[in-house]
Amino acid sequence: MKPITFDSNCYWIDGRPIYLNSGEFHYFRVPKPDWRRRMELFKEAGGNCLATYIPWLIHEPEEGHFVFDSGDGTTDLEGFLETARETELYVIARPGPYQYSELIYGGLPSWLFDRYPEVQAHTLEGRPFGLPSVSYLHPTFLTKARAWFDAVCPLLAGQTVQRGGPIAFTQFDNELMGVHIWFGGLDYNAEAMGFGDPEGHYPRFLADRYGSLIELNEAYAADYESFTEVRPISSAEADPGRTSDIRRLRDYFHFYLHVTTVYAQTLCAWLRDHGVDTPLIHNSANPDMNAYFVEMVETLGEDFLLGSDHYYNLDQTWPQNNPTPQYARNVLLSNESLRLLGYPPTILELPSGSCSDWPPITASDAHACYMTNLAYGMKGHNYYVFTGGPNPPGAGETTDLYDYGAPIGAHGQVRPLYEVQAAFGQFIDDHPWLVQAEREHDIRFAINFESARADRYWQARGDLLFTNAEAWRFLAAGLLTTGLCASLSPVCVNLDADDWVDDTATPLIVATGAAMSQAHQERIVAFLQRGGRALIAPVLPTVDETFVPCTVLSDFLGAPSFRRGVEAVIRVVIKGVEGEIRNVLKNEVFFAAPPEDAVVVGYDECTDAPLAWEVATSGGGRVILLGMTWEHRKDEQSQALLALLNRLGLSRVIISTNPAIWLALRTRGSKSLLFMMNLFSSSMKTKVVYRPGSGGQVDLGEHQIEAMSVKAVEVRP
Amino acid sequence: MKPITFDSNCYWIDGRPIYLNSGEFHYFRVPKPDWRRRMELFKEAGGNCLATYIPWLIHEPEEGHFVFDSGDGTTDLEGFLETARETELYVIARPGPYQYSELIYGGLPSWLFDRYPEVQAHTLEGRPFGLPSVSYLHPTFLTKARAWFDAVCPLLAGQTVQRGGPIAFTQFDNELMGVHIWFGGLDYNAEAMGFGDPEGHYPRFLADRYGSLIELNEAYAADYESFTEVRPISSAEADPGRTSDIRRLRDYFHFYLHVTTVYAQTLCAWLRDHGVDTPLIHNSANPDMNAYFVEMVETLGEDFLLGSDHYYNLDQTWPQNNPTPQYARNVLLSNESLRLLGYPPTILELPSGSCSDWPPITASDAHACYMTNLAYGMKGHNYYVFTGGPNPPGAGETTDLYDYGAPIGAHGQVRPLYEVQAAFGQFIDDHPWLVQAEREHDIRFAINFESARADRYWQARGDLLFTNAEAWRFLAAGLLTTGLCASLSPVCVNLDADDWVDDTATPLIVATGAAMSQAHQERIVAFLQRGGRALIAPVLPTVDETFVPCTVLSDFLGAPSFRRGVEAVIRVVIKGVEGEIRNVLKNEVFFAAPPEDAVVVGYDECTDAPLAWEVATSGGGRVILLGMTWEHRKDEQSQALLALLNRLGLSRVIISTNPAIWLALRTRGSKSLLFMMNLFSSSMKTKVVYRPGSGGQVDLGEHQIEAMSVKAVEVRP
Repeated sequence: MKPITFDSNCYWIDGRPIYLNSGEFHYFRVPKPDWRRRMELFKEAGGNCLATYIPWLIHEPEEGHFVFDSGDGTTDLEGFLETARETELYVIARPGPYQYSELIYGGLPSWLFDRYPEVQAHTLEGRPFGLPSVSYLHPTFLTKARAWFDAVCPLLAGQTVQRGGPIAFTQFDNELMGVHIWFGGLDYNAEAMGFGDPEGHYPRFLADRYGSLIELNEAYAADYESFTEVRPISSAEADPGRTSDIRRLRDYFHFYLHVTTVYAQTLCAWLRDHGVDTPLIHNSANPDMNAYFVEMVETLGEDFLLGSDHYYNLDQTWPQNNPTPQYARNVLLSNESLRLLGYPPTILELPSGSCSDWPPITASDAHACYMTNLAYGMKGHNYYVFTGGPNPPGAGETTDLYDYGAPIGAHGQVRPLYEVQAAFGQFIDDHPWLVQAEREHDIRFAINFESARADRYWQARGDLLFTNAEAWRFLAAGLLTTGLCASLSPVCVNLDADDWVDDTATPLIVATGAAMSQAHQERIVAFLQRGGRALIAPVLPTVDETFVPCTVLSDFLGAPSFRRGVEAVIRVVIKGVEGEIRNVLKNEVFFAAPPEDAVVVGYDECTDAPLAWEVATSGGGRVILLGMTWEHRKDEQSQALLALLNRLGLSRVIISTNPAIWLALRTRGSKSLLFMMNLFSSSMKTKVVYRPGSGGQVDLGEHQIEAMSVKAVEVRP
Repeated sequence: MKPITFDSNCYWIDGRPIYLNSGEFHYFRVPKPDWRRRMELFKEAGGNCLATYIPWLIHEPEEGHFVFDSGDGTTDLEGFLETARETELYVIARPGPYQYSELIYGGLPSWLFDRYPEVQAHTLEGRPFGLPSVSYLHPTFLTKARAWFDAVCPLLAGQTVQRGGPIAFTQFDNELMGVHIWFGGLDYNAEAMGFGDPEGHYPRFLADRYGSLIELNEAYAADYESFTEVRPISSAEADPGRTSDIRRLRDYFHFYLHVTTVYAQTLCAWLRDHGVDTPLIHNSANPDMNAYFVEMVETLGEDFLLGSDHYYNLDQTWPQNNPTPQYARNVLLSNESLRLLGYPPTILELPSGSCSDWPPITASDAHACYMTNLAYGMKGHNYYVFTGGPNPPGAGETTDLYDYGAPIGAHGQVRPLYEVQAAFGQFIDDHPWLVQAEREHDIRFAINFESARADRYWQARGDLLFTNAEAWRFLAAGLLTTGLCASLSPVCVNLDADDWVDDTATPLIVATGAAMSQAHQERIVAFLQRGGRALIAPVLPTVDETFVPCTVLSDFLGAPSFRRGVEAVIRVVIKGVEGEIRNVLKNEVFFAAPPEDAVVVGYDECTDAPLAWEVATSGGGRVILLGMTWEHRKDEQSQALLALLNRLGLSRVIISTNPAIWLALRTRGSKSLLFMMNLFSSSMKTKVVYRPGSGGQVDLGEHQIEAMSVKAVEVRP
């Protein structure tokens, strides 16, 4: 077996682009006599890789006593790897330390918490989170985890593809940070963080960030006498709109991300020390958390790959029982984020059954989920789980028989979900060019990763007009959702990168709050100076990402002064080229006096106050500023967005007459696949028109899309 | 047209039981020339009643200047009533004052807020909520609203069915309290509430409740010198688990309900003063708010009818895009609550289109919604809206053309939703006995209305084991959901009433927190003393509803002492008659030492500590105490609940082999309809068995239930 490599578009084996089709398969659950048969079933369904947790809990049941072969298979990791190799399936090894997997203690050994309760994450007040939330950099935890890695890594290192084994990727830990954020917030374990310790992580982080105490005291409106004196503040004690407090909360969140990165670096170093020579990977717990990994991606460099977990329902408290357009929109943002970070979008946990029996994960819902992920650029996945079995005695958290409603049941029975996965595997095999395909796009959305995570520290506006957390929500639920209903074909660009600035072929949409780094502002200015066209809403940034005044973009656009519209009744009118769209439903409006040479393209009918205008910039760029927010609800919002984008020269690639049917066209050379998504529970019709880049218009006919399904047809213009 | 009367089972006209099939139809929107045609269309679809708001906004555009016929129909209320009468359709008149209906200012006149901004509801800090949240008892608001009623009521009074007109019901206001709770919390307008005024509502309420200052000071752990000195505390300043603070928050919430009731009484008196002689009705905004109306129901008496609004999706922030089992469960609780309050369960706003174009309300989803409501006992409804049209100029909040995706569009076009409603009307007509049918049940759930609203004031446990807000959530998401997945056929009983105490035919399930009134506790004891069988979980009450120690029920059951299980790993085992169910997934466990004569039926495998036991009571009753909470997720939870209920002699009426298909069997005499609900997005199969009360077992065959549909079949045993 040859190593698997990757770039931001797809995976490769030996110079051949491939789709990574992996399935989770736990040797400690699946009965050993059935390993080979189930592996072969997976291979027949198109699989080429298996993933497995390697639970510390079962391999080190007593401290210092490691068990790696108990005969019955439960701890026979090597036997499993051998069987996988013989079946010619790659393996993703996931040795933790933490892993959850519905095991008690999250897969960590019970003695760890019994003997060393100090390793738990702590709240700011010093209260332990409880199990299994460990404090990543607690020295005792690191010592015990190191011993575990010292035991397991040699086994893994001997079985990598480079050494003739099946292990193609090694994952450290699991859904990092979730174990804190879901159970208590950020970790403030004083010993791990080094509060008050001159050599501690926290004082050193602050010293690195601020250089001098004077700078820190100015930023914090404080008068500390040393870095070691500084302590984080809680959200409760912070004034949520006070700039110095937002800075402190932001710094602690960034410090927490830094600590997590140091932990990841530590685990990676241990793996490398032992000769584990595969790419190292990690799974963001969900689309909303991808932005938490930006620092880790920068730090770990080329040998690292980030994927994301894309569940749509794990119990009745989830927003929806089945995939929905809201889920699809989050998938789009997640896949684009992963691509922009340099990775082939990989769903490291793609739903395949559920830890809950109810609400049920049905085979047809799962198929719609898989096709949605594919439509939005998924280049690899790992089904969680392909098959289960009995938990080791006493080790199960949710149940003793870990069936999971998986395609292959705990007793080896084949379920309808297996047929769905086989069909999905066949679909991928039938379109081998799809792994290198890209979305044909007509619009670009700017991603500011700092905005995507600003809700962790920025809760109120204070003196600023609009928070970046609100801007991110507006991007997702407003602009992007409206755009998808309006048949836009968006891709995303990364404001942290330069690679998009010279490309002025399609307009750019920027949802911004009051804060944007100078580099981001300069990139947008540079894009406009090269002739770029941009829609910016609902305000212009007035401060940089550290809340220091920074008006590069605003100055470039004539420095308009915004105010929040507080009138009792505001009736928004948007002026399209072919007429006005009246009374467009909004959440909020920001008025500003446009520069003299601007054309007003939106106003309040009650007061005539302008709230959108278009202006030409130096270098031939064109900008529309739109002082308005919304969550998508009304067709008028789609019409208004299209009217504004048409002014900026939008040319839609592909159009659905039914706004509820979202489209994605993925193309490689002369081959194209059109995905038509109906993620509602009723069958729907749509007519589709394609406008190839070469000009003209192709009628792609009327389509009936069954409820909760994604129809894919080949398009040959 | 004869008057329509009602009892708790159904509506009646002239001694004949009828189904109220109403549709919202706004004369101020629908073009007058099309009134008759659209009314006839509704009648052809089975309709027998229309409902309309009568917007203060358009009828009193300037203060003191009333307009009731502007020629084009927009204000031609009388013409509308005349056309309805000619078409032989009853009318539900909804004159507000507040009504929303997607009109600016919520249908209140703009001059009201411009001239008298003091009428707005206020936060505790005195900040106005903004539009259109009025403070119900503000004297200026009442003066202006009275003038509006003085103008409109004579028109209504002359057109009641008793006087030969079509008006069968009159609704005061709309979705009372929603306008506060959604936009800022409870209303604290100092002038309206009379803070500090010896004759004010608030001091008088406290004096009524406590009788003496000594009592109040004891309850509040305070030392006030007069009732007028007392001020409410905010949730933020309250210690959430401190009994005296919970009492204060609870008292203010009850006072707020009292104020709302006084407002309702005031509006009713005005209507009656003017001779409006129909029953007066009101719509609870959603199932969760029904319990807020208990005092109003008691106060307004026999001529009042409470209904509820049952939307499933109005914009993308709603939990789901379509009806779901979670929605169905809430419908069941809502319909049962209305029935227990004395009313035929009536959905005064049943989804018929939406104020949002996206996510779409599809015809087939709506049909599943209607059938679900019918399965769970709906005896009347009002489609919101049956048809729309252009808003009066400048009056629309969400759009200018109020199309709503209604069955008859704004331009009069007939949509597929119309066919669905026609089919639903036909279904009702085809089963005329259904309006008097009742659900065949095998289990009863106790409703404690105070628990259903305890989340408004009780946020933390403090020294108590379990809050009543948690108990309500456990009832809905845990016990009831598990029960429905386990093919239980539940109805509800009202702990405030005596009517169920003598009926020991089926077991009772009681989800209780730490607080239960003495009367409730005594009723449960009385039920057991008559031989009743009950499952009580997860604790026994230790205080009454005012948080004064009260252990009537606990004493009757041997006064066990509970403790919260805090062990790191707890493995719940439930002992069924035919074997044990092991490792049952729980949220939380409460351990208690059972009385000597008890049989342990549940324990923690790790410590052997008992968490469920069965005990016989004096009078031949039987109780199982189950110290465990959960949200329904696993089949094992269904098995555990069935195992315990089987010990109490449960005999299920009707059983589905597929736990995702929920059943309801509605019977009248020899006729029965079996409803089989599939509120998931995949087609499913189930086999159904019926066990009639007469004994034996009837195989009702295998059924394929299409995705998002409710199949109803006649059952003739």
